[in-house]
Amino acid sequence: MIEAYYPPKASVLSYFSSLSLSDIPGKYARVTIHHGSAPEPVVKDYLVGPLPIGSSTRMEHLTEIYHLDAIPHNARGFGTRDWTLPEIFEKMAAPLMEAYKELLGGTPQDTLTTAGSGPFSFDGSFRRLWLSWRRNTPGFFLHPLNLYQYVDISGTDPSQWDQLKIVYNHQVFNSPESFMEAFHNGSLKRVPVIDPDTDLSYSTRKRIGAQRDLDHLPGPRSVSFAGLRFRVDRDLQYVSWMGWGLYLGFDRDMGLSLWDIRFRGERIVYELKPQEALAQYAGNDPFQATTAWFDRYFGMGQSVRDMLPGYDCPHEAVYLPATTYSVDGLTTQQRAICIFEHDSGRPLTRHLGYEENEFGAVKGYELVIRSIATVGKCVMLFFLRDDAETRTLFDYIFHLDGTIEVRVSASGYLQAGFYDETQGQYGNRIWETSMGSLHDHVINYKVDLDVAGTANSLLKTTLSQEAITQPWFEDDWGDEVIQQVVTREYIDDENDALLKFPANFQGGYAIVNQQETNKWGTSRGYAIHPGYSPIHNTAVGSKRLLKNANWARYNLAVSRRKETEPSSSSMWNFNLPGGPPVDFHKFFDGENITQEDLVAWVNVGMHHLPQSEDAPNTRTNTATSSFFLTPLNYFDHDVSIESTNAVLLKNPEKPGDPFTYDDYGVQPAHCLPEHPSPFEYHPAKMFDLDGRPAPASSIEDMRKASELYHRIKLEL
Amino acid sequence: MIEAYYPPKASVLSYFSSLSLSDIPGKYARVTIHHGSAPEPVVKDYLVGPLPIGSSTRMEHLTEIYHLDAIPHNARGFGTRDWTLPEIFEKMAAPLMEAYKELLGGTPQDTLTTAGSGPFSFDGSFRRLWLSWRRNTPGFFLHPLNLYQYVDISGTDPSQWDQLKIVYNHQVFNSPESFMEAFHNGSLKRVPVIDPDTDLSYSTRKRIGAQRDLDHLPGPRSVSFAGLRFRVDRDLQYVSWMGWGLYLGFDRDMGLSLWDIRFRGERIVYELKPQEALAQYAGNDPFQATTAWFDRYFGMGQSVRDMLPGYDCPHEAVYLPATTYSVDGLTTQQRAICIFEHDSGRPLTRHLGYEENEFGAVKGYELVIRSIATVGKCVMLFFLRDDAETRTLFDYIFHLDGTIEVRVSASGYLQAGFYDETQGQYGNRIWETSMGSLHDHVINYKVDLDVAGTANSLLKTTLSQEAITQPWFEDDWGDEVIQQVVTREYIDDENDALLKFPANFQGGYAIVNQQETNKWGTSRGYAIHPGYSPIHNTAVGSKRLLKNANWARYNLAVSRRKETEPSSSSMWNFNLPGGPPVDFHKFFDGENITQEDLVAWVNVGMHHLPQSEDAPNTRTNTATSSFFLTPLNYFDHDVSIESTNAVLLKNPEKPGDPFTYDDYGVQPAHCLPEHPSPFEYHPAKMFDLDGRPAPASSIEDMRKASELYHRIKLEL
Repeated sequence: MIEAYYPPKASVLSYFSSLSLSDIPGKYARVTIHHGSAPEPVVKDYLVGPLPIGSSTRMEHLTEIYHLDAIPHNARGFGTRDWTLPEIFEKMAAPLMEAYKELLGGTPQDTLTTAGSGPFSFDGSFRRLWLSWRRNTPGFFLHPLNLYQYVDISGTDPSQWDQLKIVYNHQVFNSPESFMEAFHNGSLKRVPVIDPDTDLSYSTRKRIGAQRDLDHLPGPRSVSFAGLRFRVDRDLQYVSWMGWGLYLGFDRDMGLSLWDIRFRGERIVYELKPQEALAQYAGNDPFQATTAWFDRYFGMGQSVRDMLPGYDCPHEAVYLPATTYSVDGLTTQQRAICIFEHDSGRPLTRHLGYEENEFGAVKGYELVIRSIATVGKCVMLFFLRDDAETRTLFDYIFHLDGTIEVRVSASGYLQAGFYDETQGQYGNRIWETSMGSLHDHVINYKVDLDVAGTANSLLKTTLSQEAITQPWFEDDWGDEVIQQVVTREYIDDENDALLKFPANFQGGYAIVNQQETNKWGTSRGYAIHPGYSPIHNTAVGSKRLLKNANWARYNLAVSRRKETEPSSSSMWNFNLPGGPPVDFHKFFDGENITQEDLVAWVNVGMHHLPQSEDAPNTRTNTATSSFFLTPLNYFDHDVSIESTNAVLLKNPEKPGDPFTYDDYGVQPAHCLPEHPSPFEYHPAKMFDLDGRPAPASSIEDMRKASELYHRIKLEL
Repeated sequence: MIEAYYPPKASVLSYFSSLSLSDIPGKYARVTIHHGSAPEPVVKDYLVGPLPIGSSTRMEHLTEIYHLDAIPHNARGFGTRDWTLPEIFEKMAAPLMEAYKELLGGTPQDTLTTAGSGPFSFDGSFRRLWLSWRRNTPGFFLHPLNLYQYVDISGTDPSQWDQLKIVYNHQVFNSPESFMEAFHNGSLKRVPVIDPDTDLSYSTRKRIGAQRDLDHLPGPRSVSFAGLRFRVDRDLQYVSWMGWGLYLGFDRDMGLSLWDIRFRGERIVYELKPQEALAQYAGNDPFQATTAWFDRYFGMGQSVRDMLPGYDCPHEAVYLPATTYSVDGLTTQQRAICIFEHDSGRPLTRHLGYEENEFGAVKGYELVIRSIATVGKCVMLFFLRDDAETRTLFDYIFHLDGTIEVRVSASGYLQAGFYDETQGQYGNRIWETSMGSLHDHVINYKVDLDVAGTANSLLKTTLSQEAITQPWFEDDWGDEVIQQVVTREYIDDENDALLKFPANFQGGYAIVNQQETNKWGTSRGYAIHPGYSPIHNTAVGSKRLLKNANWARYNLAVSRRKETEPSSSSMWNFNLPGGPPVDFHKFFDGENITQEDLVAWVNVGMHHLPQSEDAPNTRTNTATSSFFLTPLNYFDHDVSIESTNAVLLKNPEKPGDPFTYDDYGVQPAHCLPEHPSPFEYHPAKMFDLDGRPAPASSIEDMRKASELYHRIKLEL
């Protein structure tokens, strides 16, 4: 793994101030090396730079951003080579072939496929996981069978690997021999095998049902008849629209990030970046009950694939590419990011009145910047990251008033469980022998707000109820009034900044600069305002999530910004719940956070209790979560009033006459628009380790590239 | 007041079944009469019918839908005539003219205007309210001054009316004489009068600031190049789109309602209708501290005005008219309702996969049905209903999968308070002497769901945490797992159905038919799923809200449907908090609600702590709240898979080739679309009491019609 290492914020801001070539921050790379042959095998990160390589270039062990000196090798990212060894098949699959055929209706060579659960380790002392078998059919994620194998793949010597347990239909065996003995001697309590002619198409996206009235017509299409209103500098990866300007970043772990987000010339956010995506399952079987995925491990950036133009984004969206690095070389996705202006369909502000300059509206335009990550959605996987919501739309939605909505929407296949009557309290049945298993998604964002500078404070506002008396009270209403009241306090200690939204949302949190006030004397701020599904994780204290995702316990948390705390997670946190490389709670060590550079760690998420309508794929309309960053006494007034895509009406002078109006010279343009491009979808562009174009990939290769850490074909 | 009275549901369903002319339910009208000259003046409702008038037509006192036999006259709706009597001006304004001039910088004849707070009564034994003075300038809602008068207008004899208290700058006086004495003798603590040359334009919608980059271009416009995909039957007021069909209703109290909402032939909702919109304020002055508006009183339907085409709704929206009745006759608004198809900008479902029929997307089209209500947004009002959010967008958003999002968005002017240093805990300063005052909005909807028939139950689902052991556990992970678990229970007793969403939204509520199951044996249901800002009222127990809005204490409540409980509120509830005509808690009388016809009373709302950005107008993007009605194991699978505005990809056969695909024959259409109509806005069409067209209205008349119950010019 080789990737750009972001320079210190101070250096960047200093360069932004001077724009002097001499202030350009030095370039550094983070390099990850698996020291697999060391006596005690470890993984280490190195900081290499400045780049390009010169006399001052150094390669130093990068430790200050982690709470571990080195990553235990058992917690490493894994490559396919671990799994192509014949030992694997011989030890774990071969002894069970007869049972596969009879109990599951096939073999790994034909109608079966398997997947592994995670995490694989607690503290790096072992590397073990449960395999779950499924039907090898389109949408196989929804076809779990009822056989699980617990395998130990610790260490670097495959001859030591073994399977430790087999669970079939709730019966537990400690060896393949004992399992096969029960299989043969009739003591095994069996589940009926499904008729091989059963129609399995429920798990496909093949269209069924009658065409709906008028659905033979294409739906409405958004057209900028006078041309697009946003600008994209492809070299700088800079986007601007209606007073907003920002830079795009992209990396292997979490994909798209936004930098130096400014509005009307002032920086609002230095860095806005997803940190981790957690999915913790529940169930009455070894697989679902032990699954707690962390998508950063699998690489949400690396998993970005081209979008479907016209379907994933409107026809006139502008696409930008993204390149990620893997052991196989470089992959460039040409349509990794899309940008489009969207008419929200409702005015942003609006009033009807009869006095001069009272009656009018501002159109509710928004700019959407989107990327879509899919993690391990592939067929015939051995290791598989395969719950529905990893097909995640990451949207950043910019509004004319200075508001940003950060929204995720999820679709895709569930990680279904095998349904039987013991499973009801962990989900809903969605097919003959399949269920949607209860799970929580929590996705953490780093929001490095700079509100009127970097010296910021955390304001907590509480709405409560008071009973007061006033001298003006009348007997008719009694001598006290019950009413709402606001309490404002600054949270000074980081330790008090692990936060949940108050019950009934009576209050909230904002990042405020106490020393900068608006025209009315109020400290300028930006509120972190809940949107759809403002939740945190339900199950707390699970050993599989002991210390590696403590950010998920809250709706948000605020810490002092440090170069040594760049992220709330790491790609190895997944496999080290007992001693994670990034231990979020350690960020909170009693420091004062008054008028300091602060970072808000904000969660979105969803309690997903799947239902029959999750098949074939989860729907984005209810599988969505968001938060707003929105000005809070930041301006002196609502600045969206600047908009000229707006109207102001004047009363008619004569009764019955129409109203006159000012549209600021902006009328709907009208012409034959450009023909939308025909739909096309190409495989990704691959480059070899030296950056030379690689030959076109086969589908099999694409799968391998897509499933790098998740998939091994079980071959003899 | 004369309005259609909805027939019993049983009659309607019976007619829907037979469609026989003989089963058409009889037509009835509800007629409200003010018996102002009775010895004990009262207001009564009558049921008149069947109509048209014939031998069997009767007029009967309508009492069964109320918890009061008759409405006390002091709680009546009021007409302008109450307030044009010279006594009013003589007694309440004339004695203070000198003070108005000197303390407030003008008189009611020139630079001042006033407004009254509500409710006006507690139990009908009196009719009193606080007047608050403001600058008479555009956006005067944001220009409160610091003088309040408490006036008694009880009974029917204006000679008995009087003012009871005067409050100026926190100083209380019991008579105009004592106030004027302090004014003259120098003991009155004064607030500086603002310089008459002060720029007051902050409260207007006049555009200011630099034009933003590219804002001289019109933004993107949605065009159905191949024609609209929804159908509207204007006579039947029937709308259909993509499997959905529904009827529109409209009435004086709450405006637009939806009836017999069906999806793919099955009724989902019999009635979906807003019931009441509450706004309860807080403050350190008599006006804000005593305000608890109920918009039903003012008539949200009657307050609907034409929409601004291209601004309030997209250019290609279809508009429908609405007619309401008032003492002045009939008013028809030609663009009271708009309907348009909207591209949400994100796919509804989506998956990337490499097996056959796995890779594809369904476009996220939605149908939006909207009305916008403004209540009393006018200048120089005597009585004024004037907080920002009465400019409310009521949206019903239909999705392809059977989901409906019910959403309100608010804009308009705040009901500002006079700012001084004692006011900080009740809001934020937004101008020199103005503040945005803390208030809660809660809006209640009646949702008469019929899930697979009318026999329905209330399912409560809870997500919690369990620690369990399983026989398959390994030492490496310890002997127990902490994970989520689902608990499901049916709430059988109405008294247990006054509900709040659980903390962290760990669970939820659904209307379920226990006797109808989907293919997988699960009871078919529809969930009531929280959307934006799922709140309930903060301040509970206020005497001004004692019993008349108990629905606002919860997120939702479920009761057995009854013809005698058609609504959770009434237009008179506003003025009768001590003994309301509709006492919501009385709906909950211990009845069994298992497999009965149920109604869910669902709230949306907003805790509104205004900020500088609320000037000039509140922004719809954060001032929004919603809930979803969404299938919950209602179908066997996600039925949006039926959509042909969708794509399904097939793997390329040769490496490097593009993917092939099936777009079901639906490609983007392309042609020169119709030219959008030029912007135009006309005054409403008025008709006299006999239904004949009335002459064109002057602006002054329009204001009067708009402000029927809110406005009296203070004239000598």
